Amino acid sequence: MSEPEPPASPVTNGSPAAEIGSLPLGSPIGIVEVAAASGFSPATVSRALRGLPGVSASTRVAVEKAAATLGYFPSPSASALITGRTNTFGIVAPWVSRWFFSAVIDGAQEVFGAAGYDLLLYPVATPSDPRGGYVINSRAIGKRVDGLLALNVPLMDSSLHSLQTLHIPVVTVGTAVQGLSGVLVDNEQVGRAATRHLLALGHRRIAFFGDDDGSHTDGFTVATDRARGFELEMRDAGLEPDPQLFQVSGFSIDGGEAALHRVFSQPGVAPPTAIFAVSDEVAMGAIYAARSRGLSVPGDLSIIGVDGHDLSYLFDLSTVAQPVKDQGRIAARLLLEQVTGPGPRPPSVVSVGTELIRRGTTGPLGVAR
Amino acid sequence: MSEPEPPASPVTNGSPAAEIGSLPLGSPIGIVEVAAASGFSPATVSRALRGLPGVSASTRVAVEKAAATLGYFPSPSASALITGRTNTFGIVAPWVSRWFFSAVIDGAQEVFGAAGYDLLLYPVATPSDPRGGYVINSRAIGKRVDGLLALNVPLMDSSLHSLQTLHIPVVTVGTAVQGLSGVLVDNEQVGRAATRHLLALGHRRIAFFGDDDGSHTDGFTVATDRARGFELEMRDAGLEPDPQLFQVSGFSIDGGEAALHRVFSQPGVAPPTAIFAVSDEVAMGAIYAARSRGLSVPGDLSIIGVDGHDLSYLFDLSTVAQPVKDQGRIAARLLLEQVTGPGPRPPSVVSVGTELIRRGTTGPLGVAR
Repeated sequence: MSEPEPPASPVTNGSPAAEIGSLPLGSPIGIVEVAAASGFSPATVSRALRGLPGVSASTRVAVEKAAATLGYFPSPSASALITGRTNTFGIVAPWVSRWFFSAVIDGAQEVFGAAGYDLLLYPVATPSDPRGGYVINSRAIGKRVDGLLALNVPLMDSSLHSLQTLHIPVVTVGTAVQGLSGVLVDNEQVGRAATRHLLALGHRRIAFFGDDDGSHTDGFTVATDRARGFELEMRDAGLEPDPQLFQVSGFSIDGGEAALHRVFSQPGVAPPTAIFAVSDEVAMGAIYAARSRGLSVPGDLSIIGVDGHDLSYLFDLSTVAQPVKDQGRIAARLLLEQVTGPGPRPPSVVSVGTELIRRGTTGPLGVAR
Repeated sequence: MSEPEPPASPVTNGSPAAEIGSLPLGSPIGIVEVAAASGFSPATVSRALRGLPGVSASTRVAVEKAAATLGYFPSPSASALITGRTNTFGIVAPWVSRWFFSAVIDGAQEVFGAAGYDLLLYPVATPSDPRGGYVINSRAIGKRVDGLLALNVPLMDSSLHSLQTLHIPVVTVGTAVQGLSGVLVDNEQVGRAATRHLLALGHRRIAFFGDDDGSHTDGFTVATDRARGFELEMRDAGLEPDPQLFQVSGFSIDGGEAALHRVFSQPGVAPPTAIFAVSDEVAMGAIYAARSRGLSVPGDLSIIGVDGHDLSYLFDLSTVAQPVKDQGRIAARLLLEQVTGPGPRPPSVVSVGTELIRRGTTGPLGVAR
């Protein structure tokens, strides 16, 4: 068989349900025709196509070839009824069009595609989503997928909490949830690394863009963990972070832009000489706003982000880079193991490393003034 | 019913197939329990949940409420067997993580989600895809979805050509395919608009980044249509485009970067004073490379892109903007109409307008030299 085929093992065996299954789609080809074409009995064909034992490799290849030649593709609906398997994984994510999520999906899809699984995409509304209103129907999801990747979703949300009661494996990306496998970076260490870099350049008055006012961070802890790393590293250096330099930004370019203007417009408050932005997109917005105010980056203001966004090098942006696509790949493999493995596995959390990338948006305090 | 529910009308009616369907998931709740809880007969409950006529609105609401309270969600697999409908649309796209595609998906998902449809994501390998090898199994897709959006896919590919024989509606985005509905921009006009802008600024030696050598444009005509618009507009101005200023770039940042270096490294060839880049990402790469060569943009070199990329304003990039997310929304509506409408409709092609956005990367010839 030269093409990967989504329903790899569980296929129709000619039971009544399977017959019903093929009817609405009008396929004239059934297991009997495959049996006739391959020269094996229908029972053998059924076993071969379902990947059951007792069929030699050469027989399996011959049956699959005959099925492919005839254009016989078992109905996924019938397969799902018989096996309880859908050969589909779901991804729950807030925004497909935000870089982080699209990169994770890309990595996961690579692994799922190679394993013959389809991918169902479930958007989830977040408190700051202007569209609002779309709520995950977790019971409906549970019947459509064999497992689920949950990407930085607000698991405090009751409709998502119920995902955990579905008895299908759920793997999180970006946030750890008690009892679930997950892939993430150590965000406190991310915050420490970015802050350490700015401190080493001589900066003392450092702002944090990404503060959580509860409305922008959508209930997940990425921003608060990075903020804590910032505060801990400052205190380790004998400095007390100035509360007036904590700015809400969400994770967006717009948010970074607005935060920069705010932090430079506080009457009687000395502006920062450096900014630790919770994401590269926030950093990009801050750079844009700084330049629009006539500030030189890094002459007047150093800015560091987090992510290693595909476009960060175009801004010469210093960043704490995380392997985003790899996190999608690893999460997909964790999910596959849970679904195809011999039995339930204890949840495992994979923490992937990050890397400080020094570029041109951060520089020594005061040098270019 | 307070939550949108993917299988809106076709649900189980308690047939043998439906019973089989609910078994693997272990739900003890069936149509009989919903009947008992709501006080209606199983036959009425079945009709109500399937959205069949002969049931009053108040009865339907009461039955749906009882079903929701009991946690009774019909099996999509069983529904699909009974109705032939999957309540799912598929999207075939080359890269989820490229901005254009993720923005189209975002727009489409908004419409599909509101209509209660799920979205299956099918990646498709392209000639320039380094991963290679993953080929669409169109027969398998045909049994899983009620319709398909095809995003700038190489429809010359035989495995995709077969999509047209599936007897499910297919709507294209970005390219027109004979016999299919589609949403697109007039790319020849896009090429003319960008070129006209550069000509009006006094430029005569204009390069085109996005030339098609057959390996980077992945078989779709977007780049060649924009190139033709460029050539036609040049000739209308009495200029013959210089073949040495046509550079292959694909649609990527990397491609734009490499093209810029090439066009400025040709021995004995005068470099361009302006570049028309086939996409904003190509333009971003060209700007980055130009600055790395010490060239001022727009002082030494004007650069215009196409797309209206979310990040284009951060580069102060002049561009011919297209409403990308809207194209996803419109395509989704076309597909919904075809699936839910009273009968087959003739294919319709929607051409959406574009807008020249003048920003700082294009300027008058020679002014800043």
